[in-house]
Amino acid sequence: MKKQMRPTTVLAPVSAVLVSCGDEKASDIVTIAWAGTVNSEPPMLSISVRRSRYSYELICKTGEFVVNLCDLSQLEILDGCGVVSGRDVDKFAKFALTRQKCTHVQAPAIEQCPLSIECVVRKTVELETHVMFIAEIVGLTVREEWISGEKLQIPDGSLMAYVQNRYVETGKTVGTYGFTAKRKN
Amino acid sequence: MKKQMRPTTVLAPVSAVLVSCGDEKASDIVTIAWAGTVNSEPPMLSISVRRSRYSYELICKTGEFVVNLCDLSQLEILDGCGVVSGRDVDKFAKFALTRQKCTHVQAPAIEQCPLSIECVVRKTVELETHVMFIAEIVGLTVREEWISGEKLQIPDGSLMAYVQNRYVETGKTVGTYGFTAKRKN
Repeated sequence: MKKQMRPTTVLAPVSAVLVSCGDEKASDIVTIAWAGTVNSEPPMLSISVRRSRYSYELICKTGEFVVNLCDLSQLEILDGCGVVSGRDVDKFAKFALTRQKCTHVQAPAIEQCPLSIECVVRKTVELETHVMFIAEIVGLTVREEWISGEKLQIPDGSLMAYVQNRYVETGKTVGTYGFTAKRKN
Repeated sequence: MKKQMRPTTVLAPVSAVLVSCGDEKASDIVTIAWAGTVNSEPPMLSISVRRSRYSYELICKTGEFVVNLCDLSQLEILDGCGVVSGRDVDKFAKFALTRQKCTHVQAPAIEQCPLSIECVVRKTVELETHVMFIAEIVGLTVREEWISGEKLQIPDGSLMAYVQNRYVETGKTVGTYGFTAKRKN
């Protein structure tokens, strides 16, 4: 039996990522859980950002950002970048993170993060509390240990997921897309 | 050290969900991994669907859909609904799922899923391979076991996440949003 509850933002699990943005003069990092893949070819994703955020200003100005995935060891940084403002502190300095120069965008990536996705904004959708930046993925840099025979292979258990307001571990693979169809053939 | 790779849809982990849609005359279920929360107040999410999908037709016609979360025991259904077409088979019958009548939308929810999110499309964004349906969450039904003292409490380890093309387990909570700020105060 299921019970009715008040509508709320409950899609889960989602990713919690560090979005870096800006340029050589001004840059910032913001923690974002309202993100998703939105198109396959070309590869695109969206992030939703509150208008009050310093990162919102920077992304509006440059039309670019970088989505950096964190591994489990980066939990403190992931949470920390969500609770202070880039107007008050340089989060790269505060969390001992290094600006990694990108090839396809001016925005810096975070060198310590295992995977950085360089994005260029293609559309903006104004919603009530948030603005969606729908962006094309134009570049990708990956920690060497996550590449196996030229292919990206994110190791089981390396990522965190976000469920309600909690960071949770991810674990072992239980299936691969299409396994039910393959089994029948 | 990080290496450059070819851009691809690599945001992870994301959720893989069953989207049910249609009305009393025609309904379908489709597995979707391209989904995300996009706005907090009112609560909104987006799903991206290929135009060739039967579910795409139904959602365009009704402007409604239901996002159903699966627990670990529903892996076969989750994968199975992604690899057959609702034009060929009734997926409710094929996977022994029950149409649950919704309060706020005509689309059926899936009774067996622990959490069903009733959605009304507010905006549509046309992208190249996919169409994004940006929708307001207007209703929520939840398995009783996931409610603790009137509050939603998704148990640790109950959900799957999607990483690259793999379904992976989620595990224990490692932190709660804002824990780094609370510790300092």
